[in-house]
Amino acid sequence: MNFDESQVIGVLAEIFGTGPGVIVGIGDDAAVVATSANTVITTDMAIEGTHFNTQWSGAFEIGRKICAANLADVYAMGATPTYLVVAVTLTGQETIEWISELAQGIKHEASSCGAVVVGGDLTRGAFKVISMTALGEVADAISRSGAKVGDAIYVSSLPGWSAAGLACIEKPEPNDLEQYAIDEFCAPTLDYSMAVAFANKGAHSMCDVSDALVIQAGQLAQASGVQLCFDAAAFENSEEFVQIQELASSTDVDVWQWIFAGGEDHVFLATGKDLPGLCVGEVKAGTGVTGLEMKKAPDTWRHFN
Amino acid sequence: MNFDESQVIGVLAEIFGTGPGVIVGIGDDAAVVATSANTVITTDMAIEGTHFNTQWSGAFEIGRKICAANLADVYAMGATPTYLVVAVTLTGQETIEWISELAQGIKHEASSCGAVVVGGDLTRGAFKVISMTALGEVADAISRSGAKVGDAIYVSSLPGWSAAGLACIEKPEPNDLEQYAIDEFCAPTLDYSMAVAFANKGAHSMCDVSDALVIQAGQLAQASGVQLCFDAAAFENSEEFVQIQELASSTDVDVWQWIFAGGEDHVFLATGKDLPGLCVGEVKAGTGVTGLEMKKAPDTWRHFN
Repeated sequence: MNFDESQVIGVLAEIFGTGPGVIVGIGDDAAVVATSANTVITTDMAIEGTHFNTQWSGAFEIGRKICAANLADVYAMGATPTYLVVAVTLTGQETIEWISELAQGIKHEASSCGAVVVGGDLTRGAFKVISMTALGEVADAISRSGAKVGDAIYVSSLPGWSAAGLACIEKPEPNDLEQYAIDEFCAPTLDYSMAVAFANKGAHSMCDVSDALVIQAGQLAQASGVQLCFDAAAFENSEEFVQIQELASSTDVDVWQWIFAGGEDHVFLATGKDLPGLCVGEVKAGTGVTGLEMKKAPDTWRHFN
Repeated sequence: MNFDESQVIGVLAEIFGTGPGVIVGIGDDAAVVATSANTVITTDMAIEGTHFNTQWSGAFEIGRKICAANLADVYAMGATPTYLVVAVTLTGQETIEWISELAQGIKHEASSCGAVVVGGDLTRGAFKVISMTALGEVADAISRSGAKVGDAIYVSSLPGWSAAGLACIEKPEPNDLEQYAIDEFCAPTLDYSMAVAFANKGAHSMCDVSDALVIQAGQLAQASGVQLCFDAAAFENSEEFVQIQELASSTDVDVWQWIFAGGEDHVFLATGKDLPGLCVGEVKAGTGVTGLEMKKAPDTWRHFN
């Protein structure tokens, strides 16, 4: 081991610091924060080997990615992130620099949303685990159950880049397009402002696509008691479609596999009237999802929150 | 694998259900809960092999123990637990019964404090990980930094039983006393009401002993800028002392090793005037901790929240 625990805590406390609303920060049994009447809470866990791989991603990207997954869940409720806690298992083989970069990545993503890391837990184990919980504040939450027959369906951007990046990750000399996808896999670039725009424009339902569009759409359809009818051709209206299709062709993959079944982009999926983003279908009476056909069904585990 | 993920989520949603203050519960991107002006937040992660072992503990005990660690941190701030989220990594080798018992254990401990599990995350990995985050509400938090010169030092009960249990865990035919210690190791019996009593009686500082009394006392002394002077003989006033000493003798262990360096009992440590519990010393001007001498220094990692 290259460090002792008090050293790690010192580094983390310095990086995370404090922020608005923090009454008691890092260094006590628990943090105390100022909250409004309605608080949003969500948690996400990432395991070395399953969700991240230190051979593929730097610590900064790993921190950003896991933080983004939590922040996206807060935004997907129409809420604004406020505070985060981070529980980390380290093997003891990490350098203090690696740990510091991980914390910097978390801080970077949190700060981009005005959220503050207020505490955490540090343990040792045989491999790395990072679990985060995010809080947010909201007046009227937008749930998955509000989709109405006659709503249009929107995505904040074209999903699939993270899945594309995973397919390219082991290419020895990736070209620019492949490198873009790899970067999105290592730490997706989320446009959180699109979730805010969906909320401000009165979206009836919203979620983020953490697993696969087809899975999240199915959950939203079920929660709302409606059918989500997608128009695959509408995805081709995205400016990015030509690029991801080119990458899929050169990788010999069905592009719809990436777009419909690829997760971890945390694209926001919403229904409503006259929303911004890419309009990709409409809500009808019925059940389930239509129009998201691909050659192979996705196989992932999902949130239960 | 003996189950699919939707089955697990169904079981968890049924066990955890809902409760007072829950506006949006399990089944959306995030939960939405009613909160007061000041919210306490804390997180704890437990790793198979490091913090729990399925050969030693049943799923119910594992769930109880991890939940208790979080709840104790909330109470240690003088707060009342309200909501919890749970992130779990499963290997896929578990039975649905094991998972159900884990959830029942979490629910049991949470319910004993009036707290509700409102969401979580479910992932797969090479071994089990359980991470929880607890929220609580508080008017005036009791931090570690409030100890004053002239305060008496109190513990809510005698620490050491969890450490004693670990020492006995592999005994083939444990006697009653050994079994009591083993049970406390597998899932400690916390008297949360003692933390409430400390708070109601105006404790100046408080923390829970999650790692080791000597470590937590050192943190409290440092945070408060005082010296914590313990009187080892005062611990012998506990009704339980004779029993733990008997167990230590028969196990050929220095009993003070268990009492001063054993963690995971989550005994509450507080300073103030005329508090209930066991009075074990006084706060003086200076730094550090005196009176907690034992033969071997503890080696553990600590929280950074």
